[in-house]
Amino acid sequence: MTAEIISVGTELLLGNVANTDARDISEKLSELGIDVYYHTVVGDNPRRLTKAVEIAKSRSDIIITTGGLGPTCDDLTKQVLAQAFGRELYFDEEEARRIRSWFEKHRSIKMTDNNLQQAYLPAGCTVFRNEVGTAPGCAFQAEGVHVIMLPGPPNECNAMLNNFVVPYLRKLSRDVILSHTIRVFGEGESSVESKLRDLMNSLSNPTLAPYAKEGEVMLRVTAKADTAEEAEAMMRPVVKQVQEILGDIIYGIDVDSLEQLVVELLSKQGLSLSAAESCTGGLLAKRLTDIPGASKVFKGGATVYTNECKSALLGIDSRLIEENGAVSAEVAVEMACRIRKKLGTIFGLGITGLAGPEGDGFHDVGTVYVALAAEKGCFLRKLQLGNGGRDRIRTLSASSALDMVRRYLTGLPV
Amino acid sequence: MTAEIISVGTELLLGNVANTDARDISEKLSELGIDVYYHTVVGDNPRRLTKAVEIAKSRSDIIITTGGLGPTCDDLTKQVLAQAFGRELYFDEEEARRIRSWFEKHRSIKMTDNNLQQAYLPAGCTVFRNEVGTAPGCAFQAEGVHVIMLPGPPNECNAMLNNFVVPYLRKLSRDVILSHTIRVFGEGESSVESKLRDLMNSLSNPTLAPYAKEGEVMLRVTAKADTAEEAEAMMRPVVKQVQEILGDIIYGIDVDSLEQLVVELLSKQGLSLSAAESCTGGLLAKRLTDIPGASKVFKGGATVYTNECKSALLGIDSRLIEENGAVSAEVAVEMACRIRKKLGTIFGLGITGLAGPEGDGFHDVGTVYVALAAEKGCFLRKLQLGNGGRDRIRTLSASSALDMVRRYLTGLPV
Repeated sequence: MTAEIISVGTELLLGNVANTDARDISEKLSELGIDVYYHTVVGDNPRRLTKAVEIAKSRSDIIITTGGLGPTCDDLTKQVLAQAFGRELYFDEEEARRIRSWFEKHRSIKMTDNNLQQAYLPAGCTVFRNEVGTAPGCAFQAEGVHVIMLPGPPNECNAMLNNFVVPYLRKLSRDVILSHTIRVFGEGESSVESKLRDLMNSLSNPTLAPYAKEGEVMLRVTAKADTAEEAEAMMRPVVKQVQEILGDIIYGIDVDSLEQLVVELLSKQGLSLSAAESCTGGLLAKRLTDIPGASKVFKGGATVYTNECKSALLGIDSRLIEENGAVSAEVAVEMACRIRKKLGTIFGLGITGLAGPEGDGFHDVGTVYVALAAEKGCFLRKLQLGNGGRDRIRTLSASSALDMVRRYLTGLPV
Repeated sequence: MTAEIISVGTELLLGNVANTDARDISEKLSELGIDVYYHTVVGDNPRRLTKAVEIAKSRSDIIITTGGLGPTCDDLTKQVLAQAFGRELYFDEEEARRIRSWFEKHRSIKMTDNNLQQAYLPAGCTVFRNEVGTAPGCAFQAEGVHVIMLPGPPNECNAMLNNFVVPYLRKLSRDVILSHTIRVFGEGESSVESKLRDLMNSLSNPTLAPYAKEGEVMLRVTAKADTAEEAEAMMRPVVKQVQEILGDIIYGIDVDSLEQLVVELLSKQGLSLSAAESCTGGLLAKRLTDIPGASKVFKGGATVYTNECKSALLGIDSRLIEENGAVSAEVAVEMACRIRKKLGTIFGLGITGLAGPEGDGFHDVGTVYVALAAEKGCFLRKLQLGNGGRDRIRTLSASSALDMVRRYLTGLPV
């Protein structure tokens, strides 16, 4: 069975908001083994909505709409869909009672007659109660198509999706779809993809799809089967093959991020980390402290953006900086060792480099030194990230530092 | 002229990501006075993409695609669109050179043959250089339709949109559409909106539209006219009215961000800043150093995430922390004064608070103290941000610190 999501709302076409409803619904449908082939966004315009519905009818087994169930005169989704499938609208007394009692509960909001518009529903539909707002959703089957209508506000849409639509759809679909995400750092998408092309081409179910995100590559393995056990069994050999092909540039499977992984690894082993950042200017600390509970392992850091500051906060000898330059292996190592010592942590990271846009006359923009001070000694990476923009250089530098800790903690060559 | 956005990418249909490209493009098009009637999302599937393009051809004057320009074998947008409009693909030597030199700069990423796939472009197209990544975009006109292809990664899509597509589209429409963005910090969207509702309702051209973004409110004034002068003249009184209504919670007009403004204000006056961060964990430093040339005014900072660290890096007396608690006005002030003294800057900021998700048993999650140490003395803000999530609390805390500097430097009560 294939599905299409039609999101109704001029605010989406004006670019005021992103279509998160379509994302959330799609995620649930793929878990249920229902293929989503199209998203369509259309404004609060009955003629264009009607056309979009006609197109959807001709190519999809399930049509899920979001939005246009509200009380205002431009909320026309129910009218248009009912008409497109030859259904009458009836006045649902029970929903009318629910709406009235909702307004009794929320006295601050005044009820107007048009709020009761929301109690009109297509004849013979299954009603989905709105546990967050007033507009009910509904589902009916006509002309071989399953039609489901959900409210637009994300909190209302999500509550209805999870509590009513997922159970409703589960009855319709036999398959289970599961997937695993393999996360890679240290090689570009095309290089990873060329290594995996033969494997990818040889697969149909499970599938293997790469996508790039913030200097990383994610590989999604997705299997469709009758049971979860079966799907897992189908994916296992594929994940194994990918691991054999890519080796230790894979940093995790179904983990959220490098920083998440590093915080977990450190917590498990009861180890601590500190960081001295120059060109990343706090980004590494920010990413680590994005993780709740990071304080258990990340003690803190210094953003030593200027030379004076490197001396004032870390006590780095200004001559060392003069002799080698702020962007140098020596300074990166000194930063790592000194922050480690100052904060008494097991690991210390030092990052210094040139994020651009301007160069310093000595190094190419994108030249970054990352140092990891640890018990076994100090490890150094020199990066040449090119001038792909300040954000990219800073993100890859911070990720590279996290990757060094990850490799050290998992016994890999740093 | 009406436009349609076709976003190509299975990851969108699997619900891995929301379609932010379509949102960003729609926002720009509406500023340009081009109506967007449809968004369509389709997977990396040539047959379904072809069908989506056929439908778009029949109903839209402008088709903008995002995604599917990458080097991997499932990147097929150029092939499909060229075929749909009877164009050949040619190998663009200049783009090939650009791609090769990009990889020479980015030595850490290995170039593979399929990267050069990206140099194939539709005959007779206008090439849009990719200043962030490798995949070029392009535009051509055929069968009375303007076709524009953009890369999928949001940073690449946005850079190309602003630098090349907006100027390209501006030539297509006769009217001049100009807009100004009024940026507000310190009040919520609904409060700002209710103050401006009468004004907003009284306007048709120019228009006034509010957007909420990361704890700020942006107000966009947009005028459509025959000439730029005319448009500016139409907007001037509206901007003035908004300024009269909202007063000094407006921090700038057509400025990029609070951090941008603060860096500019400090540079102009030759002043310097440093920061000691606890709950924001480097976010403030990260945001300041996002701005190229920030090093002239932002000397550095300390991410003092733990109590030991507050003492080790800033020399804060551990008894002060024990007596008042790490989340206290006293500690915020001490942090601000000590980082200011340590780095010899004109201003020092201190931020300590509870970002959650867990509480500390004493304070509500979202309780944050922000201190600004300056020549005139030390200023303090106590924030009660509620438990709206870690990101929101951290972002608002950092913004609040920047706003204090902004207000001090512009002679407003801090």
